[in-house]
Amino acid sequence: MTTKEETDTIVYDEAHFIQMLKDNDTEVFRDAFLSLHSYDQAQFYEKVGPDIRKLMYAILSPKEMADLYEGLEVDDDEYESYLKEMNTTYGAEMLSHMYTDDAVDVLNELDNHQRESYLEMMDEEVAGEISELLGYAEDTAGSIMTTEYVAIPENSTVRSAMTILRKEAPNAETIYYVFVVDDVHRLTGVVSLRDLIIAEEETLIRDIMNERVVMVHVDDDQEAVAQIMKDYNFLATPVIDNKGKLLGIITVDDIIDVIDEEASEDYSKLAGISDMDKFDMNPLQSATKRLPWLVVLLFLGMLTANLMGQFEATLEKVALLAIFIPLIAGTSGNSGTQALAVAIRGIATGDLEKENKFKLLIREMFTGMIMGVVCGLIIIGIVYFWKGELLLGMLVGAAICCSIIVATLAGSFIPLLMHRLKIDPAVASGPFITTLNDITSILIYLGLATVFLSQIG
Amino acid sequence: MTTKEETDTIVYDEAHFIQMLKDNDTEVFRDAFLSLHSYDQAQFYEKVGPDIRKLMYAILSPKEMADLYEGLEVDDDEYESYLKEMNTTYGAEMLSHMYTDDAVDVLNELDNHQRESYLEMMDEEVAGEISELLGYAEDTAGSIMTTEYVAIPENSTVRSAMTILRKEAPNAETIYYVFVVDDVHRLTGVVSLRDLIIAEEETLIRDIMNERVVMVHVDDDQEAVAQIMKDYNFLATPVIDNKGKLLGIITVDDIIDVIDEEASEDYSKLAGISDMDKFDMNPLQSATKRLPWLVVLLFLGMLTANLMGQFEATLEKVALLAIFIPLIAGTSGNSGTQALAVAIRGIATGDLEKENKFKLLIREMFTGMIMGVVCGLIIIGIVYFWKGELLLGMLVGAAICCSIIVATLAGSFIPLLMHRLKIDPAVASGPFITTLNDITSILIYLGLATVFLSQIG
Repeated sequence: MTTKEETDTIVYDEAHFIQMLKDNDTEVFRDAFLSLHSYDQAQFYEKVGPDIRKLMYAILSPKEMADLYEGLEVDDDEYESYLKEMNTTYGAEMLSHMYTDDAVDVLNELDNHQRESYLEMMDEEVAGEISELLGYAEDTAGSIMTTEYVAIPENSTVRSAMTILRKEAPNAETIYYVFVVDDVHRLTGVVSLRDLIIAEEETLIRDIMNERVVMVHVDDDQEAVAQIMKDYNFLATPVIDNKGKLLGIITVDDIIDVIDEEASEDYSKLAGISDMDKFDMNPLQSATKRLPWLVVLLFLGMLTANLMGQFEATLEKVALLAIFIPLIAGTSGNSGTQALAVAIRGIATGDLEKENKFKLLIREMFTGMIMGVVCGLIIIGIVYFWKGELLLGMLVGAAICCSIIVATLAGSFIPLLMHRLKIDPAVASGPFITTLNDITSILIYLGLATVFLSQIG
Repeated sequence: MTTKEETDTIVYDEAHFIQMLKDNDTEVFRDAFLSLHSYDQAQFYEKVGPDIRKLMYAILSPKEMADLYEGLEVDDDEYESYLKEMNTTYGAEMLSHMYTDDAVDVLNELDNHQRESYLEMMDEEVAGEISELLGYAEDTAGSIMTTEYVAIPENSTVRSAMTILRKEAPNAETIYYVFVVDDVHRLTGVVSLRDLIIAEEETLIRDIMNERVVMVHVDDDQEAVAQIMKDYNFLATPVIDNKGKLLGIITVDDIIDVIDEEASEDYSKLAGISDMDKFDMNPLQSATKRLPWLVVLLFLGMLTANLMGQFEATLEKVALLAIFIPLIAGTSGNSGTQALAVAIRGIATGDLEKENKFKLLIREMFTGMIMGVVCGLIIIGIVYFWKGELLLGMLVGAAICCSIIVATLAGSFIPLLMHRLKIDPAVASGPFITTLNDITSILIYLGLATVFLSQIG
């Protein structure tokens, strides 16, 4: 893990830019600023306060601001406050100039009323496209696709295709794939710019296009789309409707964001947070994000306490028993979390689809048995040499061994079951499985102890 | 989380292909098979056994097999067994035809002797390039870059650049960026194919190239490279040496693999597995992967037991105390894991760099206090209404409150400290922090109980 600190080179002088803005050196600022990459422009925009940003709105055109927004990576809720800084006509024009998928991201953050008023002020055609995109459910292909692609008819030649490409190049999100459509806009093929530039000018597109297009449906889940683009190393993938009509494309940069987002999500859930904290949240906001899980687990934990209460008589007889409870519960929780992570990651990456799930469960059972026996023997040894208690050692060892086997099986069985039931298995978060395993392991341990004590006593 | 199952369409008929191979229908097989995307070819190749694969080696040329290998996504150790199925000349020729970064991945899996013998049989120039790439340390930019890029001199025109592009197109890994170099091959600019096709043919490259090239150093960490490509939405990034000479490029498909790999790694560590299981491992192999962590944590857990042993007298006096231990330890572990995940993910995504780390710790302290007070009050309520024990409730509540605060602070402080000390903070895995928090929370609880009992008794 390395950090940006170590590799970032300073690409612009922030103070200098601010000075230019304050001094009203319009042309100097524009020349220097517009030569920056949109990501660097956006970093500057994000960092300076609203006052400086207002100077920028006065100097940069809505189109130039739309380019800057390309590079912006902020929390969604910040879009609203940025828009409030601009006058509405400027904002609407900026939105018209953005790629439709990015404009949708911004508009999604506004309330219905605001959204409508922006859409009314925007270019009618763009507003229509955006309204359609706004209708797709979250996390579907439709919600992340853009409508700025290049489409050509089947009977074009390479020459006419290149002419269309040159014309569309300034507006299209990618020109590296050209999509071939029939007269009712159904997708029939794809040609890469690589193929176009090496082909003869008179060649018919029909003759060089690839007809085995890998496409996704507008309602497909964004994770499935990411998996396909990763497998096939695509830079862009076409999105179609039920009739096979081309609706838009999804580009690789959006897919990287999806992969990142989903990894964060799975990670948060393994840690028992409903949603990852942002670093600029205040303590109350971040406590609100974490408390729900913590309280649910607290009640589950009370079940454990309640369960242990049933064994109060046993615990009163031999207080020494209690000191091994955290050890047994902890070890069982750890082995369960390991098995859980393997299963969830396997489901997330799609690797598990290729394998027999029943085979995985069998393997996990044997894995659990091996780990259980090893850990059990270690514990017998430690307790014997440390406390000189062979019987207690055997009791603790047997409990650890059984707990590990049960926990490993549960850790893989539960996510597989949830996946089968079409529930996102990642919600079977680490702490949840850990708490369940607390209960079973304590039941096993104190149950064994009670039987054992009644035998010898 | 969706799976491939739901979206995959069957793109080829496996049984049919196998039949063609067995029937020796060479031309029919070649026509149908070579029209598949390399990913689909590779899926077939992976699935069928060695016998069928041997028939494929007889029918497909080393170049065609190299194309298939483009789509192959197998565990690294499988490359060796595949290579063993081919005769060495065929294998060497196939390696010569692969993109250098992919050939490096394969050759890295062989022992020194085998690697050398392949390199000796390969095309001399390619072998030289590959040997150089093999020398870069794992996880650096050098280890994932490829040397198949298009470079042109500064004084070229758009026309001559396009001629070079057309010539290089079949071999270059990407032709969508053209890199501009001076007479000693130092990188001075970059032009996208998008810019080239809209420019006039006589324009000088010097006049349209972008001189603010974002580049990475050959020794940079691959995660830092991924971060840059994600921020700037690049399809490829040039890699340079100390003198600014262009050595290779890294393409976006490799970066997606890096992002995926690193997310898996962080995830595994949060779950306490040194390395994610492969699904085709046998129980002994997967137990071997998981046991080291489990045993280390077992010994840490023995510390907990030892510590509790110090409080045996207290536990003997009030056996009821023991039943809340798993609850307190569990809750403290959960809140610690939450804080840990937020800190680690923040470091991994680079978000934390922008913020003040001290501010994060202060926030986490207040977050811990809010969560501690809420959970503490809930517990007092439950114990009072369930057991009718107000004093015990207050003891357990106070212990939970303090434990949550300490655990939340530890969960964010420890990864930040490790990051400062240049240790990968992800090794402070979930189970490790959980076990540490077990110890502190039990110490707090039984410590409070002992003081309390001595006061009233």
